[in-house]
Amino acid sequence: MKGLIEKENGEMWLEEFEDNGFKVSYKIKEILYTAQSQYQEISILDSEIFGKILVLDGIVQTTSMDGHIYNEMISHIPICFHHKPKNVLVIGGGDQGVTQELCKYPFIENIDLVEIDALVIDSCKTHLKEIAGEESDQRVRFHYEDGAEFVKEKKNVYDVIIVDSSDPIGPAEILFQYDFYKDIYESLKEDGLMVCQSQSPIFHMDVLKQSFQNIQKLFPYTSLYTAVIPTYPGGLWSFALGAKKEFKLKKDLLAKNTKYINAKMLKASFKLPQFLKQEIQG
Amino acid sequence: MKGLIEKENGEMWLEEFEDNGFKVSYKIKEILYTAQSQYQEISILDSEIFGKILVLDGIVQTTSMDGHIYNEMISHIPICFHHKPKNVLVIGGGDQGVTQELCKYPFIENIDLVEIDALVIDSCKTHLKEIAGEESDQRVRFHYEDGAEFVKEKKNVYDVIIVDSSDPIGPAEILFQYDFYKDIYESLKEDGLMVCQSQSPIFHMDVLKQSFQNIQKLFPYTSLYTAVIPTYPGGLWSFALGAKKEFKLKKDLLAKNTKYINAKMLKASFKLPQFLKQEIQG
Repeated sequence: MKGLIEKENGEMWLEEFEDNGFKVSYKIKEILYTAQSQYQEISILDSEIFGKILVLDGIVQTTSMDGHIYNEMISHIPICFHHKPKNVLVIGGGDQGVTQELCKYPFIENIDLVEIDALVIDSCKTHLKEIAGEESDQRVRFHYEDGAEFVKEKKNVYDVIIVDSSDPIGPAEILFQYDFYKDIYESLKEDGLMVCQSQSPIFHMDVLKQSFQNIQKLFPYTSLYTAVIPTYPGGLWSFALGAKKEFKLKKDLLAKNTKYINAKMLKASFKLPQFLKQEIQG
Repeated sequence: MKGLIEKENGEMWLEEFEDNGFKVSYKIKEILYTAQSQYQEISILDSEIFGKILVLDGIVQTTSMDGHIYNEMISHIPICFHHKPKNVLVIGGGDQGVTQELCKYPFIENIDLVEIDALVIDSCKTHLKEIAGEESDQRVRFHYEDGAEFVKEKKNVYDVIIVDSSDPIGPAEILFQYDFYKDIYESLKEDGLMVCQSQSPIFHMDVLKQSFQNIQKLFPYTSLYTAVIPTYPGGLWSFALGAKKEFKLKKDLLAKNTKYINAKMLKASFKLPQFLKQEIQG
């Protein structure tokens, strides 16, 4: 499989180039699953330090050790800024970590999960239960479609849209472009809000700025927040939020059973380092 | 030199094992300096992505790309919690990044820098000016001594003490032990405060807890804060603060010419992720 190296001493290592000059390597105990779908190579590995790892085309997507950080940050924050959303759309997110977090909110009535690659969903359901969950929730409806196409047909439907995309190469490339955000805007109800992962402020400032500028062009209220994801390059990761109406944090809404997020650090995640503040203010 | 690998294609890579099962590799353009001191192997490398890197015994200490994050977080925070400190002690910190930050405060009258390894200071002065600075400030006094011995002889002298140690192996091991913190306590004036780097909440929770508990045993007012350091394992890093008197942030004290820190994220850095909060509350 892509990125997997077998050393002379028999050890297996997954090597991930974050850039031409920076590489992160994970010692792998076992390949639990690997297959080629129509879109990408999907592997689930058991690693020495980070537990189980989902790898798409050689790139680490999530791990059972730190996946909850990303999943909590991209899910709970939009929920706590909206006034009890009922209808939520998740684009991407085939590992189902985000839908697992959303299911912690009893007032959410429907979650549409749109993942282009059905095999990602199936393989995580079978081999990555630490993230995808043991049981299925009746509120989650699976759509094996292109997220960009899916939102084109929806107008004024969702309270919250979460764009849980992989990196802007391969099938997720379109999920970083203006036209997609415009369709997202139109899919949201008049008090709706959206959030997307907007890459690393250390390694992908260009993508970050482009995503955030697209959102700023469309939404009257926008904000950027960050979290530390140990298995993402540079550790620091960004999320961009766009809202049709002014949003205000409702701390008492936050689910109690979280591992990373709490009300105080939720607010703190919007206080950006100086260099990032300057970059996005132009 | 330790950790430096020459590939078959002629490329040089510095390989750093963060753990037995996790490795980070930096592509190196040039070895600018390497020497063995009485204490450790000191190297300064020019890397593809992170600029110049200071490496001690194969471990990355600081880089010209992200070194300012660590240096700002460990320097400006104690200064802004103290009411205009005049006399400051820095233990470790041979790269002089911390003293460079402290020199931004005109009210500081004296900075004692105690670094056991004179060769670290000299090599950074010559080959790592991006961090050590171009010019010397008359307020900085260099002491080439063991920091743990140095503080034993000082009683009721300093307003602020910053422990800028390397990892708790080799010469810095003693800087994580109770007796050392006790001497620090006694070296501080009655309204003094100290800060130390307390390692990674992801990889070294045991060291973090031990450092923080030592400080809690001695100081009536303590707090923990975090920052994201891309070149430190796991990205998330912790700092422990101990004060003899109740401390309150004086935002207006913060120096203007910072790259990472600002008043809002300074406060935000004390809002800890849930897992870390639970760990240190026991």
